Order: sequence, then C-alpha cells, then structure tokens
Amino acid sequence: MPKKIHNIDGIKFGSASSNTRYGDKEDSLVVTLPPQAKLSGKFTSNKLRAAPVNLAIDNLYSSSQGSKVLLINAGNANAANGPKGLIDVKRYCKEIASDLDINIENVIPFSTGVIGEAMPVENYLSAFRKALTKLNVNNWKKAAGAILTTDTKPKIVSKEIKIGKESYCVTGFAKGSGMIRPDFATLLSFVFIDAKISQSSLNKMHSEALKVSFEAITVDGDTSPNDSSLLVANGNTDKFIKTGSLAEKKLSKIIIEIFKELAELLVEDAEGASKKIKIKVSKAKNIEQARSIAFTVAESPLVKTAMFGSDANWGRILSAIGRDKTLDDIDKVQIKLNNQPLVKKGYIDSKYSEKLASKAMRKKEIFIDINLGQGQKTFEVLTSDLSEDYVLINSDYRS
Amino acid sequence: MPKKIHNIDGIKFGSASSNTRYGDKEDSLVVTLPPQAKLSGKFTSNKLRAAPVNLAIDNLYSSSQGSKVLLINAGNANAANGPKGLIDVKRYCKEIASDLDINIENVIPFSTGVIGEAMPVENYLSAFRKALTKLNVNNWKKAAGAILTTDTKPKIVSKEIKIGKESYCVTGFAKGSGMIRPDFATLLSFVFIDAKISQSSLNKMHSEALKVSFEAITVDGDTSPNDSSLLVANGNTDKFIKTGSLAEKKLSKIIIEIFKELAELLVEDAEGASKKIKIKVSKAKNIEQARSIAFTVAESPLVKTAMFGSDANWGRILSAIGRDKTLDDIDKVQIKLNNQPLVKKGYIDSKYSEKLASKAMRKKEIFIDINLGQGQKTFEVLTSDLSEDYVLINSDYRS
Repeated sequence: MPKKIHNIDGIKFGSASSNTRYGDKEDSLVVTLPPQAKLSGKFTSNKLRAAPVNLAIDNLYSSSQGSKVLLINAGNANAANGPKGLIDVKRYCKEIASDLDINIENVIPFSTGVIGEAMPVENYLSAFRKALTKLNVNNWKKAAGAILTTDTKPKIVSKEIKIGKESYCVTGFAKGSGMIRPDFATLLSFVFIDAKISQSSLNKMHSEALKVSFEAITVDGDTSPNDSSLLVANGNTDKFIKTGSLAEKKLSKIIIEIFKELAELLVEDAEGASKKIKIKVSKAKNIEQARSIAFTVAESPLVKTAMFGSDANWGRILSAIGRDKTLDDIDKVQIKLNNQPLVKKGYIDSKYSEKLASKAMRKKEIFIDINLGQGQKTFEVLTSDLSEDYVLINSDYRS
Repeated sequence: MPKKIHNIDGIKFGSASSNTRYGDKEDSLVVTLPPQAKLSGKFTSNKLRAAPVNLAIDNLYSSSQGSKVLLINAGNANAANGPKGLIDVKRYCKEIASDLDINIENVIPFSTGVIGEAMPVENYLSAFRKALTKLNVNNWKKAAGAILTTDTKPKIVSKEIKIGKESYCVTGFAKGSGMIRPDFATLLSFVFIDAKISQSSLNKMHSEALKVSFEAITVDGDTSPNDSSLLVANGNTDKFIKTGSLAEKKLSKIIIEIFKELAELLVEDAEGASKKIKIKVSKAKNIEQARSIAFTVAESPLVKTAMFGSDANWGRILSAIGRDKTLDDIDKVQIKLNNQPLVKKGYIDSKYSEKLASKAMRKKEIFIDINLGQGQKTFEVLTSDLSEDYVLINSDYRS
C-alpha cells in the first residue's frame, strides 16, 4: 500500500455488496468521471470475449458526450452466456443510466469472476444503486477491494511528480492473480491521471505502459475473456499536457512506473505464489525471439516447480530454452541466477557452485538472466513459481 | 502388465545397478541384437540434445555391419555437460565394444535422469559389464524396470498377430512420466518385432506409429534432451514382411496399437496424475489448427487443475480454446465431456446439467470432445491432470 494515496480531482468511487458469491463482502464498484475526462481502454485478445467487454468497447468508442460511469462487478464474469449475457449487462447499464439521467453509452461495464454462470442482474443492480449513494473521492481502498476475486489483497499505486512548477498525480488499482498472461491477463486495471491530455497522447501512453507491464507478466499462461485496462485523464484544464512536450514525456514515464508496479503487485499476489521471478532474455536476434524464449521459460511447469522447491535445477531452464522453436543455437547460451553463474556456452559453467546457487535460489526474488549471444534485443517477463497452493486454489475455485 | 510377454527371437536383455542415484536398484540395461536386425530411431527435437543422443544418432546411421548393442542408463541424463559429456559416453561405449570385440559404432547409448551432472562413468561401466553376464531373452520385466526414473511402474506391451499362416510378435517397453510433450516426450521407448522388414518400411511404420502415440501426448508441455524411440526388427528370415504387402499393413496396425498403448501407460503414470484425459478436436479447418487447440487445452494449467478437482468448469476449456491463435470463430464451438453437453455455439449448452456434468467429471477417464464446426480435420491428444503431487514431485526431484 502506498504511503499516500493521491485523490484525482472529480473521480469518485462508491462500493457495495451484491450478496451473491462473496456474502456481504463488497463486490460492486461504481466510478463516476467528470464530463471532460478522456478514456483509453485495452481489452482481452481472447476470442471468448465477455458480454460486458463487448459493450464496454462499443461505449468507449461511441461519440456520446457527458459524464461517464464505470460499473465493475466481481464474482461473475458474464462470459460465455450467449445472447443472454449481453441482454443482462445492457439491462443494468440502462437502469443506472436512467437513474443518473445519462445516455446508456456513457455507462462502461467491467466484470470478473466465474465464466458461464448467468448474471444475477437484480443483485448487482441493487448493489450498484447502493454504491451510488456512497460516492466519494477518497474511497480508493474500498474501490480496490471491491474488484477482487482470488486476490489476497488490494493493489494500489499512487505517485506525484513535479514537472516545471506544476505537480501531477496518478493513482490506480488493479486485480488479478490467476489466468494471467498478456495479450493479456485476467486483470482489471484502472489508472487515473489528474491532467488534461489529448486522446491520442493518452492512447500512446497507455500502450507504451502496457507493453512493459501487463503484457510482460504471466502466472499460468491462461488468459481470460474479461481482461480490461483503463487509463483515464480527468481533463483538469489547470494541468494541461501538450502533445509532444517534455511534460508529456515525464508524465508518460510515471505512467509506465505505475503500470509496472501494479503488474508487480499482481505477480507477487499470484495464486499460490511464494516467489517473484524476473526473466530477462538478452542478446536475442529479435524481440520476437527474446519474448518467445522468456515466456517459454516463465511458463515451464518444471522451471516453476523447481523455483518453488528452491532447487537450482538449471538443466530445466536450459531445456526449456532448448525446446523453444525460435532458438537456433544453444551453444552460445549463458544463464545466471541472482548473479550466480549456471550455464556458459550451452552447458554447465565451470564457475558453477551448487552451494552458492542453492543459496541464491532460496531468495524470495529470483532474477534469471539469459544471454542468448545471438543479437542485440532484450525482453523481460515477470512470473511466479508453481506451488501446491496454486493447484489447491484452482482445483476448487468454483465451490 | 500384459498377460503374456512374447520374447523376440535373438533379442537379449541384462540389467544391473550402478550403485549411484538409486542405491542398489537396477538402473543399467544392456540389450544385444542379432546382426541381421534393422533399427529405426527417432530422437528429441530439443536443441539441448544430450551427448548419448548425439552419439546414438551417429552410430545408428553408420554403415557398420554386425551385431548391435544398446546401453541404457537411468539416473543421469548426461545432458548439458559440454564436451566432457561426449567424451564420457564414448568412453564406456568403447570399453563395452572392446569387451564384446565389436566396432564402437555398433554400440548405441541412451540416458535418462538429471540434466547437467557429470556422468559417473566407472559406475555405469561396471554395471553394464555386470549386466552383460546376465543376458537372457526372458528378461523383459527387469529390462523395463531398469530404465525407470520417476515412473512408478514398468510399462510393457506385447502382442501377437496372425497374418496368413504366420504369427508375428511385437513387444516393447517405455519410460517417462514428466517433462512429457511430443516432438517429443522425456521418454525412452524400445519396441522389438520378430520379423524381417526393410529399413524403409520399418522407418515408415515407426513414424506412423509415433504420430498418434508419443507425438500426441503431453504431461506438462516440457520436452527433454534425451527423448528416444527405437523400433527394432530382429531380421528373422522365417518371417519376412514384403514392402507393400497386406502383411506389412497388418503389422503396421499392430505397431500403432503397441505405441498407442505404451503412450497411454505413460500418461496413466504421469507425475502426480489422478486422471487420464483424452482431448479430441474435430471439424477443424486443418490439422495444424486441430493440433494447436488440442495442445492448448491439454496444457492449460487451469483446465488441468479443474480436472484434478473434478470441477465441471467448462468456462476454462472454452477460454483456453479462445486464446489459441489459430481460432477464427468461437461462435461455432461445441464441447462435450464424457458425453455431457457443456457448450454449444460458443456458450453454455441449454441442455447443460451441473449435476450430470459434475458426475461425469468424477470419472478417472475423461473424454473432452471439442467440435470447432469449421472444417473436416481431427486431432486427438492424451494428457493428465495437474495435482498437488505433480508440484511435490517436481519441486524436489533432484534431492
């Protein structure tokens, strides 16, 4: 949790419980945005796209003016429910729009939870209505809590930077701890900026930040039908960021940091995870190769279980690299783990020490440094280990 | 274990213990073949190829005449040991060749076990020498036992078919229970035929059998540097199989059955597995699509853990299909599980019954029938569930 959570002018949160899957735990969140806010959204690449995602995309890109409202529910993904799914999400969006006297196109829905169960519309609708009575600019912690599913804790990042005489605040929160892999993860993420930014500049900041954050993490290689990342600039005219300015560059950097920190929080809280593992593949012939090998290692069940067991079984890392289809030459591969030499020229490094490697493996943060020796490109991915608890959590998720 | 294990004329087995990793459990196997035998080998596609695999490939395709000998050891993979690995395997092969007064090119080595540990050459050499004193045509069970690593039991299949007036016997054994995925698995497999078959015909039988067996199973998606499959015809001139004959077709069919049964035995004994899961993808636009989607579902940790927990969480199956890059259209997808309707037109089937689906899920054998509705091609893959035991076994394999 950040020491200080900076409010973002005009962004208000209210949360309540639908009294469905999670009993009386709050699971329904309403966020209201000022009319001048700009939004940039990025959504799942899974072809199984949840009904609320389809509606969110339509509404996000509609030309409707005026204040926008986000409706977020946890517990039910409203995915794979067929035509009924869209009817359901439209129903509660329409009701809320009518309550607030706004156009339905200004209501943007997000859902996370179990796939393929009918949406208990009335329950969530009453929860959203109750949440609307509690709107407040301070409600960050409750908001971050209301969107969680298997996560063990809320994930909030907040920063302030000074650019010239002006200071800018960015605060965001996210959820997601399994079914995580980019293009991208089962995650919902909402980041808010206290500034006026052009749509194109906002979109650019968003995709640059995604590339090195949510698109560079993996828990289990699975993706979800509900993944959504939203970046919102509140449109504060006192804090206007000119496209192409130095201020834009600096702000973009802080946005990247926020996204990276949120991504790290997700991996730290990954289902059953006991370790955070950063895998860097460098000297690749191109980005695709670096990316492919980084993910192959990150998603290898044998690498992940060895990490869980703190076993310096570097053969599994090398073997995972060896099975990647993009690799041409294993004889130049070099691997270090937390700075301990493991592999050189494709086989055991003569400086390898079982004792020191084992000691390095017992750390909670693991850095696997893979040098392919074949080019100049680098890609980094963040992942977790594979524990018995992951299996326990996921063999019993619905019950 | 088959009711009857048919000996294959002239194929002899001897086994012994190297007294290394597994104490006094036998872990070293010698197989001697008659001079007229023909061999077909297929090896790992992992670019990290173990030293014995490199030597086996060289020797298998050498033009050296005379009796061939297989040397197989479990416990040490002799992979990723650099130039030393090749020196080591050549050393014991040369010694055995000299003992038997044969050309070193007639000695074909296979190894399985831990990657990246120096080969205790002297220990295995004495074990092979001891094994040579115990050669016998009946030693199938001991042979199948001596090649095991994390497997819990030996895997032997034996069949006899009558073709015309002649009867033909085929017997084989295999090992492998983790790091299993085709192109192909951490497996060693040795199948012997009591017949004289041309090299080209033998190779063809071998690749046809592999396609539907070891190349269509997956435990964890990982592959190993040591995978090897060997099909041997003993060259029995009384049982000559003419290329292009009906007898060749019939024998080929029995070889396919033998390979499929061995592959099933591997999956049944997969590390920590409690279930055997067959995934059939039909009506695909091409084989690549059918294959890709079958493996995406088979290797999804969320699908595998749901299977372990007997949770009829069909959303995870559909979501795994949805993230496969080869899929164009999810709206035609239909899924059944042990004949229970789950998904139709890309969402929950109106005939879905939670009660009946849950009952179907509790079976030990699961058949997931995925109809893509997009073409005419079919691919089947066999896999296991993902249990806590898999994690336990693999977080602690080396110790």
